[in-house]
Order: sequence, then structure tokens, then C-alpha cells
Amino acid sequence: MKLVSYTRDGVTRHGYVADEAATTVAELGDGDLTALVQAGAGTTGWQPADPAATHPLTGVELRAPITRPTKVLAVAANYQEHVAEGGGEPLDKSTLAPRLFLKPGTSVTNPGADIPLPSVSTQVDWEAELVVVIGRGGKDIPVERALEYVAGYAVGNDVSARSVDYGYERDTSSSAVTFFDWLAGKWPDGFAPYGPYLVTADEVPDPQDLDVELEVNGTLRQKGSTADMIFTVAELVSFASRLMTLEPTDIIMTGTPAGVGAASGTYLASGDEMTVRIAGLGTLTNRVV
Amino acid sequence: MKLVSYTRDGVTRHGYVADEAATTVAELGDGDLTALVQAGAGTTGWQPADPAATHPLTGVELRAPITRPTKVLAVAANYQEHVAEGGGEPLDKSTLAPRLFLKPGTSVTNPGADIPLPSVSTQVDWEAELVVVIGRGGKDIPVERALEYVAGYAVGNDVSARSVDYGYERDTSSSAVTFFDWLAGKWPDGFAPYGPYLVTADEVPDPQDLDVELEVNGTLRQKGSTADMIFTVAELVSFASRLMTLEPTDIIMTGTPAGVGAASGTYLASGDEMTVRIAGLGTLTNRVV
Repeated sequence: MKLVSYTRDGVTRHGYVADEAATTVAELGDGDLTALVQAGAGTTGWQPADPAATHPLTGVELRAPITRPTKVLAVAANYQEHVAEGGGEPLDKSTLAPRLFLKPGTSVTNPGADIPLPSVSTQVDWEAELVVVIGRGGKDIPVERALEYVAGYAVGNDVSARSVDYGYERDTSSSAVTFFDWLAGKWPDGFAPYGPYLVTADEVPDPQDLDVELEVNGTLRQKGSTADMIFTVAELVSFASRLMTLEPTDIIMTGTPAGVGAASGTYLASGDEMTVRIAGLGTLTNRVV
Repeated sequence: MKLVSYTRDGVTRHGYVADEAATTVAELGDGDLTALVQAGAGTTGWQPADPAATHPLTGVELRAPITRPTKVLAVAANYQEHVAEGGGEPLDKSTLAPRLFLKPGTSVTNPGADIPLPSVSTQVDWEAELVVVIGRGGKDIPVERALEYVAGYAVGNDVSARSVDYGYERDTSSSAVTFFDWLAGKWPDGFAPYGPYLVTADEVPDPQDLDVELEVNGTLRQKGSTADMIFTVAELVSFASRLMTLEPTDIIMTGTPAGVGAASGTYLASGDEMTVRIAGLGTLTNRVV
């Protein structure tokens, strides 16, 4: 099932895509999908209520499935070829932990939304990513059971400013300084678009077998498969839950394959359109402005 | 005014401390202070409604003023003596930016609450901090007007695991690996207690003139003044708002003075009690268990 949040007549509502051709939405209620996911939507045994009405999908404006996730976790360096294009050595998973970071709620934006180029960077880049939506809360979740905590999946883009410029000369000789810059480059408004659907976990039999690709203005830039993740979705969920309690409506952006702009010194300019596709999950398009 | 969130008869409510001796709470309504702060509580011109009732403060259980902040921002390396005790060189503010990081919502806990020692670290440490609660949203806020965006202040503790141990030998030779460890050490459940009050900004004429101290089991460990912050509250608010939109109910933990446990290799053990005091803002006590 493709769950959706959307705006109709200026009000945020939620429902699901009612037909194979994705032309109709069956409305379940007011507000985004937050309450539905908190109530178990997408996890085993859940069934939606009967829809209140149906509407043409063209008459509504899709929103990020959870418009304000309780956490926006993301993972750096989770595809070997992406690490290599950044000049990194081969990673040995047996001696590493996943590299998690947080993005603020204000970084989340909707499918189709324009993303403002921030004033603090001229090196804004794309990162096509599989997004995991947590549906059941837990702590110290074993890897073997981790996928039971997933409500579903979405297409995401971990938009990233590769450098930040605060308007004065700074001493960036320390790796701490450059790391904090790297972190801040993940936070601008709109830098975590995801959607267009929350595809429930039952429709994604193997999250490690999904083709991921990204185009900028119609030119293919990234093409990979979640089969090449260093840490799998189950491992990421389990690992994150060792550090802290995961909650329904947390999301995890699971890392990007090779082909980011930084590898070739190509950055986004106003008007550029990014299109991310993940097999079975739909298409996410956002323009930078 | 000392605004408070609390539980009474099992229900979360909000109000304010009604008397100088802090024995009575005047109740304003159900839920924590979130809606009140979104409505402008603490900012210039705001006046509370008449209270619905008063209750003895001993009969309620205080909670973190905003139990789930929209962002929990924190600042590393914001007091020179703390930087020095960690082995760092003197920082030249003119060539640096504030070093911001995010903590997850699940790290927030209540005054008086027990904080579980996480399974992933044996080096858990304290950090007494002034907490700023944002009361007006904004982007690119000028330093000169930044304090107008502050609803008020609270006492906080940026509890920090100085190392993380995932149960297997890892290659920590890369500064990226150690930085991600540092970041994860800020995230465990309960690692951001703050309270007991949200003291409205009008009662804090100068946030850069507050004595901050922390005791562990009655022994003084940290003693500083917000006068020694490298970046002031106004500068931190302004800087953060250049990176992203600030919203009412965001909080900022503003860095810690010298005297953390790591400087002397002293870490918290089960049963240890941390008490943080900031002049005019009250006392925050939490035990690790």
C-alpha cells in the first residue's frame, strides 16, 4: 500500500493511493500520516479503515509522508563506491560502526517542493537515498527482528552543502572545524525532501534489492542498488537502537551510492531539477531555487 | 515568571510558579508548555491568562519545560577553559564559527529523572549548561535582535559519553570515525535533562552574567560564568538561524565551562547524583542509574 500525506483545499490529510495507475487517493482522515504510523500503519497485522472518500491524485498536493519526523537520522559513507569517489579507502565493515548523524526537522520538505539554495554555500549537492520510516518503537533491537520495526520506505534526497562560507576567513586546519562544517552542510531548510509515498513494508520484500537512481535536469548522475549498502537497513535500525530509543515516525536516510556532484566538482545552480527514482517506491522531484 | 510543565494526577499540564518561595503552581492548562511558547509566552508583550487553579508544587512532578523540543541544538567548545582542559589551543573567535550539533528528542528528560547509563559506554560525563528556549521563529536573525527571539532560559546538562564501545574492535585511526563516535556519545536516552523552570527572558536581564555550577554527589566539579562564553547567546541564536530556520520550542544548549569529568578521568557510576545550578534559574538534579 502506498500511504500518502497531502494537502487538499488547504488542509493536510492522509490516505492511500487507491489504484494501480496512481490516479486516485482514498482519504482516511485529517492531518498527515503521523497518527496512523503511531497506530501501527505499515507494520504486520495493520489494516486501514474504510476510506471516507476518494479524490483524483492530480487534485491534491503530496507532502512528505511524516511532515515532522521525531528524528531524521542519516548515514554517511554507506556505499563503498561513494566512499571511493570521495577519495576514501575501502571500508572494512568488521572494524567499523555505521556513521550516523541527525538532520533537523526543518530540513524536511515535500515532493515537488522548491529547495532554496542557502546563503552559506555555493557547493550544494544531491544524494539519492532509500528512506526508512520506523513504525514500532524499540531499544536494542536485534538485527534479525529489525525489519519488523519498519513501517515502510520512501525515496529521499540527503541534499548536502559540501562547504559552508560564513563570510569571513576561518581557520579550517583542524579536522574538528571541518567536521562541524560538514555537519552544518546537512541542515539547511529543505535539505531532506522525501516521498512521494510511504510504501508499506509488505510491498518491499527485500529492501536490499532496490535500484536507486538520480537525474539532474534529465541527465543520469547516480545509479546504484541498495544491494551495495555497507550496512543493511536491518543493521542500521538495530545499530541506531543501541544508541537510543527509536520511535514510530523516526526516519532513517540510509546513505547514497556513487555519483554525487562533489566527485566531479559539479554543484547545483538555481533552477536545477533533481529527480530520484527507487524501483517500486516512485519518483521524487525537487528543484533548487 | 517561572513557567513550568508538570504531571498532576497522571496528566501533563502547564502553569507558572505563583510565589517567591516556589511552593505553589498556578495552573494554566493541559499539555506541556509547547502551545504556550508557540503562542509567544516569554516574548515581549506576552501576558498569561488567569490561572484555572493553584496547587502545591510538592504535589506535582516537574517535567522538562518543552518535553519534545522541535530541535535540540548544542554547542561544543564554547568556554575557553573547557577547551583548554581537553588539551585544546586558545580559540580565536574571529577565525571560528560556533560548533553546533544536534541531540535527538529522545535525549530530553525531566528534572529529577533518573538517567540510565547506556550499555555502549563506561565513560559518561556531565556538562552544566545554560539552555535557551526559542520563542519566536526566524531565519537570518541579526545578532542585535537575537534576544527578542528568546522565550526564556533553563538549567541544562549536556550529558556526554566520552567513548562508545560497540562490543568489537574498531579502527579508530580516522578522525571521521572518532568524530562520529563523539556525536553518538551525545545521543543516549536521557542525555539532555533540563528545567526545572522556563524562566522568561524578562527575568534574565543579561544572559552573559550568570553563575553556573555543577556538583556530583555534593562535590563541586564545575564553576563558571556565562560571561566566559566564546560565542554569546545572541551570537549563537543569530548563527544557528543563518544555517536554518529557528522555530518556537527549539532549544539551544550553550556549552559548558571547565570541570568536566573527562579532564581528570572521572566518570559517572550508577547512583551518582548531578546537581546543576544557574543563578536565578533554579537547580536541576538528575541521578544516573
